[in-house]
Amino acid sequence: MRELLDRIVDHRDLKGLDHRQLDSLAEEIREMIVETVRTNGGHLASSLGAVELNIALLRAFDPSKDRIVFDVGHQAYAYKILTGRKDQFHSLRKWGGVSGFPDPKESPFDHFNAGHSSKSLSAALGLAKARDLLGRRHYVVAVIGDGSLINGLALEALNHAHELNTPALFILNDNQMSINRRVGGLASHLAALSVNPMYRQFKKLLKYFCRKVPDGRKLESFLEKAKQTVKGLLLPPNMFEDLGISYWGPFDGHNIQEMEKIFNMAKSYEFPLLVHILTVKGKGFRPAEEDPEWFHGVSPGMLDIMSSSTPEESWSEASAACIEELAERDPRVVLMTAAMKEGSRLNRFSEKYPERFFDVGIAEGHLLTFAAGMAAAGMVPVVSIYSTFLQRAMDQLVHDICMQDLHVILAIDRAGLVGADGETHHGVLDLPWTRTIPNLAVMAPRDRNDLRWMYQEALKTRSPSAIRLPRGSVPVSICREGHGSPREWGSAERIFDGTGWCIFSYGATVPLAARTYEETWRTGVEPPSVYDLRFLKPLDTDMLRSALSSNLFAVVIEDGNVEGGIGEKISSLANREGLKARVVCLGVPDRFVPHGTVKEQWEYCRLVPDEVIGLYEMFRKRGKTGPGNGNEGHYREQEQRSVADTGGIRQSGRREGTETREESSEKFPDRSR
Amino acid sequence: MRELLDRIVDHRDLKGLDHRQLDSLAEEIREMIVETVRTNGGHLASSLGAVELNIALLRAFDPSKDRIVFDVGHQAYAYKILTGRKDQFHSLRKWGGVSGFPDPKESPFDHFNAGHSSKSLSAALGLAKARDLLGRRHYVVAVIGDGSLINGLALEALNHAHELNTPALFILNDNQMSINRRVGGLASHLAALSVNPMYRQFKKLLKYFCRKVPDGRKLESFLEKAKQTVKGLLLPPNMFEDLGISYWGPFDGHNIQEMEKIFNMAKSYEFPLLVHILTVKGKGFRPAEEDPEWFHGVSPGMLDIMSSSTPEESWSEASAACIEELAERDPRVVLMTAAMKEGSRLNRFSEKYPERFFDVGIAEGHLLTFAAGMAAAGMVPVVSIYSTFLQRAMDQLVHDICMQDLHVILAIDRAGLVGADGETHHGVLDLPWTRTIPNLAVMAPRDRNDLRWMYQEALKTRSPSAIRLPRGSVPVSICREGHGSPREWGSAERIFDGTGWCIFSYGATVPLAARTYEETWRTGVEPPSVYDLRFLKPLDTDMLRSALSSNLFAVVIEDGNVEGGIGEKISSLANREGLKARVVCLGVPDRFVPHGTVKEQWEYCRLVPDEVIGLYEMFRKRGKTGPGNGNEGHYREQEQRSVADTGGIRQSGRREGTETREESSEKFPDRSR
Repeated sequence: MRELLDRIVDHRDLKGLDHRQLDSLAEEIREMIVETVRTNGGHLASSLGAVELNIALLRAFDPSKDRIVFDVGHQAYAYKILTGRKDQFHSLRKWGGVSGFPDPKESPFDHFNAGHSSKSLSAALGLAKARDLLGRRHYVVAVIGDGSLINGLALEALNHAHELNTPALFILNDNQMSINRRVGGLASHLAALSVNPMYRQFKKLLKYFCRKVPDGRKLESFLEKAKQTVKGLLLPPNMFEDLGISYWGPFDGHNIQEMEKIFNMAKSYEFPLLVHILTVKGKGFRPAEEDPEWFHGVSPGMLDIMSSSTPEESWSEASAACIEELAERDPRVVLMTAAMKEGSRLNRFSEKYPERFFDVGIAEGHLLTFAAGMAAAGMVPVVSIYSTFLQRAMDQLVHDICMQDLHVILAIDRAGLVGADGETHHGVLDLPWTRTIPNLAVMAPRDRNDLRWMYQEALKTRSPSAIRLPRGSVPVSICREGHGSPREWGSAERIFDGTGWCIFSYGATVPLAARTYEETWRTGVEPPSVYDLRFLKPLDTDMLRSALSSNLFAVVIEDGNVEGGIGEKISSLANREGLKARVVCLGVPDRFVPHGTVKEQWEYCRLVPDEVIGLYEMFRKRGKTGPGNGNEGHYREQEQRSVADTGGIRQSGRREGTETREESSEKFPDRSR
Repeated sequence: MRELLDRIVDHRDLKGLDHRQLDSLAEEIREMIVETVRTNGGHLASSLGAVELNIALLRAFDPSKDRIVFDVGHQAYAYKILTGRKDQFHSLRKWGGVSGFPDPKESPFDHFNAGHSSKSLSAALGLAKARDLLGRRHYVVAVIGDGSLINGLALEALNHAHELNTPALFILNDNQMSINRRVGGLASHLAALSVNPMYRQFKKLLKYFCRKVPDGRKLESFLEKAKQTVKGLLLPPNMFEDLGISYWGPFDGHNIQEMEKIFNMAKSYEFPLLVHILTVKGKGFRPAEEDPEWFHGVSPGMLDIMSSSTPEESWSEASAACIEELAERDPRVVLMTAAMKEGSRLNRFSEKYPERFFDVGIAEGHLLTFAAGMAAAGMVPVVSIYSTFLQRAMDQLVHDICMQDLHVILAIDRAGLVGADGETHHGVLDLPWTRTIPNLAVMAPRDRNDLRWMYQEALKTRSPSAIRLPRGSVPVSICREGHGSPREWGSAERIFDGTGWCIFSYGATVPLAARTYEETWRTGVEPPSVYDLRFLKPLDTDMLRSALSSNLFAVVIEDGNVEGGIGEKISSLANREGLKARVVCLGVPDRFVPHGTVKEQWEYCRLVPDEVIGLYEMFRKRGKTGPGNGNEGHYREQEQRSVADTGGIRQSGRREGTETREESSEKFPDRSR
């Protein structure tokens, strides 16, 4: 029983509560969040810290009219609960359920998606400028965390705000407790601002002036006067002011009444304004548990063909151990990350080699160029980065690392489908993109043995290389039947021998290929030869030629986008050289895959033995290949069914200008997606 | 006759000159730059502004030991002249000649490549930290322009510098005259710093203290005292200091003696230090002329089959005109760029619709998210961006635009090989990368008519789309023989009818396909059917199926990377569906293409009719396809020949740690590239 929360349908009901009740409501929301995240996983700490902030926001602003943009989802759980999604909140991060991130497809109150950090200021400025041009009247608010603020994207927006010179409220949600994790000069600057008693003085002054002002319209001139009065005497230097953005703060981010007042005052400010609030991590925080299920989930039979003694070691952990081993052997090796020390399990390394470990904060572009600088001086940097975040640093990879052919090793973590974090966090583009870059070698180990081998080879070579690490636990060794070639740079490996058809797999899709092989024995279908490509670039073309010449049919199984994937290249090789095999690609279709478990996502993409066997049987019976990656209809159907099944709330996004769009989509029905 | 310059072999000879002579030398260098750029094209204004800076740098630092990193090449011409490349400087930007940008492959004195802006600080920090770890002793200097400083990458590095806490000198080359082009709050801040008389006071104080200091080692403590003395009383707020980076300046960037003194003082500073110098644009500046040659260069016969009335209109100009037309019709249309207003010819639009035009400065990531924000509010932003710079904003394209399926139109300028700017500026990755993103349509017009049609369709559809614009002049109309289907969304077009084989082309490669068709008539080879794909995504699979079924052989001609290109997808389609055509891909091979004319680059990639016909003839005679994109040997040979031909200076890069690398490359010879 939640006395207050049970009575709340949505944000409109907040108006009727007094501040004592609002504080109790905050506690009830906190309970709900803890309960849900305990079951479903999720980002707990930041969500708990932002409960009061969300209540104050929804009291001061009207989300049906005003635009509130969150920077990452972590701060938006309370917002979701209070904007009509309370009863679905139990489905958080589940297939068909509430997303862990704001998503306009989910609710008309989510005004912009979030997932990768630091975008909210840019998006808010766009929304604000569009409002001006369209002659509308509403407020635009961006909520950004202190960790996100140091990313180049946010800093570019801060710089641009001055020039746009339109009302936009940036709320800096500064978690004082996370100071250790914040990186760099800006963090120190924020810390200085936070403790400076002069600002507390200014805050009082601000309140004093506000009481004096009968008409909010002229507030800013009063404020300006107030500020000038104290400036140079009382106030410490302030970076935001230097950039032409007014700064108010810091305020208590757990005092609903105070924040509400400040937000209402901010409404009459006619320029970009940054309000700095201080929050602390909520109690009852337990780090969201790693979901170790996916490997077993995908392939319950897999363990039979593996000799796995520590099945629970994650790819990230194994990778970190391999990097440690390199560092022990070679003093040139350094390790660096962009704020993913915990996620990529680099703690032990950072403690063992503090001088050789660098966490640059959420700054992926800088991370790669910084690594290139180190490599140019003769070091061998290992850059640990999530696949999805590498999308933020592609130009740096091309120009600074590969064009200069520098000896940098990329450890691409969370490659493939990632589960509950959903569409914004999948690592499905790294392979299609990296394979187009000259000089870069791209590897995908299937087990711990090969992972270790690949790191050691990457250290020996003098060119850049990338090692893809899936999510989940790492098999110690996936056995082969002795038919494979020895492990060499650039060589693929045949793991199982079959008749008439074959499967090309790599990394996380090798177990699926192996399960398919198993399945054929069980069901009496001809067993396929199973290949582990190992190297996506350079490809083992000799092995491929031989396999494509001796088989009539092949399936390439990928855990990334089929569009631009390695399957296309293999199929293209078969065509160009007139080799007899028909090649079908199975992988992530040309659409964004929703959140859920990795297992559900693999099933959604038909990454299951039945599908692989089905493709072969269709070919055998009809002498024709199946639709391969062309079967979009299937996915559409799947999606609808899954939403219906779970009572999910997925709905089409409400957007302004819909009329125009629908009109045009009628004229060009084939184009509306 | 250049009295002083003729006597200079390299930077070591600068030591023997007095400051009067150095000033004269600067004039002689300026003359040489003007002369060369007049003939070869290049970036004149910035180069002329940085002559004295480079002399001072090379007097204060030793480039054989110290590391000097330029941010973009524009500032490095004098550096090149003074570090042993004087006699080759006439070959600037020519095939096999001196690159327009610093390039470690060209000279051991170029310590890091440059091309895309704002990377120098990150690279310098990497070099500095590596120096510390390796126990070396030398200085690290980064030279960055004021326009580059607002990019997120540079700002991330500024933030990180504080934490690394190692000596690194950042020289901010602030061109006061370019204030109009600078964007945002940081620009205003720099302007304030530049004119503030207090800083001039401080400068005097600084000099005073320096005279007092006998031992440079303790300089910083003196400086610190000096600063504390005046702080809060005399000094305006300073953003760099807020970020924990010491700031000295501003100084006169044309006073060699003063700069030299400051740089020498900076040597004993043990923390990150930013020195702010003010420079003015050199006299005699004439904007580097657009090279309108490429289209004719590539296809001298092309005009015969075109009805081109204004062959000199560039793709950028035509695109700007089409966008203007959209803006006239639809008030939702806004146009935005990241500092490429001139380059993409958007001046007229910006004057006509100042309220609907946004130049965000060199901030590509922000540009795309800002556009997404606008689109989310119902506007239709056209984002004009060079293909090569889009590499800086890929994540924003995926997440903020395509994942939300927002109505943004990308005008991808300078798609394909770009000529003299060389390897850092080619637009060869946009197609392989964009085609992997769901929801995005990718189009490539071959002529002005189709360009206009595509813009209009992109406005009608409600999803994101990208239009690729090659470099050079736009054909008004490339005729077709009436066999093509009508222009429809997603449809390819058959331009010429042939027998037995066909060519698939798009955008800038259509003229090459047409010339090949012409050539077959001349030489008696069977003429190919010629298709313009028009849409790279969605592909016209019906048309492709029919063409691949009715021809035995096909060549796909691309102006981007073959690896991951659309050719692979077409070839893969033929294989999967068992269609009879063998498909060979011709385009940019898996290597970085050097600078030169576009014509030379196309020839280097074998993008010439002879090659296309040769591929067909090889297939016909041997019943086998040629090596297609596998023929790496060819390119290697070409490269060596071209260097020899022009007396060029291309050489293998000298890097530290070479011993280790060579050793390992012997052990693994197949991997050294």
